[in-house]
Amino acid sequence: MKAAIFKGKGKVVIEERSKPTVKDPTDAVVRIVISCVCGSDLWFYRGISEHPEGPVGHECIGYVEEVGKDVKNSKVGDFVIVPFAYSDGICPHCKAGFQTACTHIGFFGQGNEYDGCQAEYVRVPHADGTLFTVQGSNFSDETLASLLTLSDVMGTGYHAAMSAGVKKGQTVVIVGDGAVGLCGVISAKLLGAEQIIMLGSIHENRQDLAREFGANNVIEVRGEQAMKKVMELTNKVGADAVLECVGTNESYKTAFAVARPGAIVGRVGVPHNVEIPADITFFRNVGMRGGPAPTRAYIQELLDPVLKGSINPGKVFDLKTDLDHIQEAYAAMDERRAIKVLLKVCDL
Amino acid sequence: MKAAIFKGKGKVVIEERSKPTVKDPTDAVVRIVISCVCGSDLWFYRGISEHPEGPVGHECIGYVEEVGKDVKNSKVGDFVIVPFAYSDGICPHCKAGFQTACTHIGFFGQGNEYDGCQAEYVRVPHADGTLFTVQGSNFSDETLASLLTLSDVMGTGYHAAMSAGVKKGQTVVIVGDGAVGLCGVISAKLLGAEQIIMLGSIHENRQDLAREFGANNVIEVRGEQAMKKVMELTNKVGADAVLECVGTNESYKTAFAVARPGAIVGRVGVPHNVEIPADITFFRNVGMRGGPAPTRAYIQELLDPVLKGSINPGKVFDLKTDLDHIQEAYAAMDERRAIKVLLKVCDL
Repeated sequence: MKAAIFKGKGKVVIEERSKPTVKDPTDAVVRIVISCVCGSDLWFYRGISEHPEGPVGHECIGYVEEVGKDVKNSKVGDFVIVPFAYSDGICPHCKAGFQTACTHIGFFGQGNEYDGCQAEYVRVPHADGTLFTVQGSNFSDETLASLLTLSDVMGTGYHAAMSAGVKKGQTVVIVGDGAVGLCGVISAKLLGAEQIIMLGSIHENRQDLAREFGANNVIEVRGEQAMKKVMELTNKVGADAVLECVGTNESYKTAFAVARPGAIVGRVGVPHNVEIPADITFFRNVGMRGGPAPTRAYIQELLDPVLKGSINPGKVFDLKTDLDHIQEAYAAMDERRAIKVLLKVCDL
Repeated sequence: MKAAIFKGKGKVVIEERSKPTVKDPTDAVVRIVISCVCGSDLWFYRGISEHPEGPVGHECIGYVEEVGKDVKNSKVGDFVIVPFAYSDGICPHCKAGFQTACTHIGFFGQGNEYDGCQAEYVRVPHADGTLFTVQGSNFSDETLASLLTLSDVMGTGYHAAMSAGVKKGQTVVIVGDGAVGLCGVISAKLLGAEQIIMLGSIHENRQDLAREFGANNVIEVRGEQAMKKVMELTNKVGADAVLECVGTNESYKTAFAVARPGAIVGRVGVPHNVEIPADITFFRNVGMRGGPAPTRAYIQELLDPVLKGSINPGKVFDLKTDLDHIQEAYAAMDERRAIKVLLKVCDL
């Protein structure tokens, strides 16, 4: 099979690898229909984070090709969403809705054989707790793209909103105009936010998409200027909830600064050299929650609006290509020519 | 009148000062019945925090002696609880229940003339938003002591529990066996916690009080050993909610470590040289909320259980003395001979 292989900073290539098979009785093998490149893939692509050379990619949807003898919830031929992390579904953390803290947790695309989702097939450990079977068939390309986002990006934006405790009628600030931030806009809207403000967006296409998804204000400036602007827009009160969707020290700082006293910063941007100000947040009673999104927990509630078309997170994919063009897919995201790149692997 | 005056590290004395009067039309003057010393007073007493020399103390209950012409909610003779911070009660932050972020916020006992509560009288700015009138009379000494805790310590423990989102049936860990931590135990119990674990208590009297207030387990050890013990007691899951009631780097570290994934650390210990680990908390999806407690917001809901005697936070006062013995009151708390010291100022 074809599989995307990370070869060091700035280099991802397609190589021929043997097709995965079931190893443990709780495994399944999934034949991938579509996959994509994640903003978080850029950390290793740019050489900022350590990552072993090997298979990459952690988002996909596809068909169950093979199941181990202990797999009960999936059968061959099921159409499934593969969350970016696998989990057993039965430990106390999974039951509490924090599958990314599962006692058997593992992440796809970590450079191990057969665990990359930018490939034709992937082996899925703990299939019963991990895979989500979608009923129905003949999905449009638009619906497929949106279903793919439930693997990671839409669930991650939603986790930011849930962590921030977004409620009906609130003013919500989103820090970051990447695909996650844009899905944060969708999530804030879905949870009933009345005023949605996106910060730090300088790209017209991202601004347009943010507005289409429900943002009332899109602010180009960052840092101090953005804080001032938010205070202006909120009668000096600040945001009721803030979604941190970047992960830099500057974005965290901005997120904490625009939060009103008592508000929570829902953070899903993996922190890179971030210092959390213990004193400032304390004296302002500003909280923080979040982390790796338990996207598996959110698929059920997000599926219905996706299938109805009332939310269209698949629109974050503004470049669609295939596995053979993997290098260009990474380059387009790295250079911010594309918001997020979809990789078509095979026909439905 | 008599007033406690901070004179530099380790020295608080009683001096004769003129009695405060109404200055602004929104002021009231309160004749203090009982006051007390706060654990947070020890920061300046020990010379750790900067504090101007001058009047101190920020907790009291008493009678309204005089009101400004714009005061509508209080009248002369009302028996009132004075929260440790004054607030206007009408700004967006007050309305949202975060009075300690009021646009007119101020704190008592900051060394300014007439703002100390360890005194016979105190001037209360923004009386309408600040004072809470308690109906009834002939309160027992026990009830009076408990009413006094609504000024700060009980409301602060409750803020920790509310910030941590304590819910019925949960396992709650409390870090710190001071008066706030003990009130955290009361709060966790009041909110329906099933298992309450207090950490780091080596004093038998505090352990006994923690158990009386509802703690199921009192753990003497700290740091790594305490974390191991919590994991043992929770089947390796961790706490559903954690109350940080100390404010040191070690206590914060412990609080984050014993929280289960998805849990929130409710913090009310003023941070002193605390580093919040951005990465560890992120990857474990552990949140944090809290800050200076808006105790004014909680008086209404805590009053009923206090008056009924179903909670008895006044028991944290294990030494009762008067203004003339202020130096001994501070020393007893500094040397941890007393949990919290009540200062009788005048008869009811």
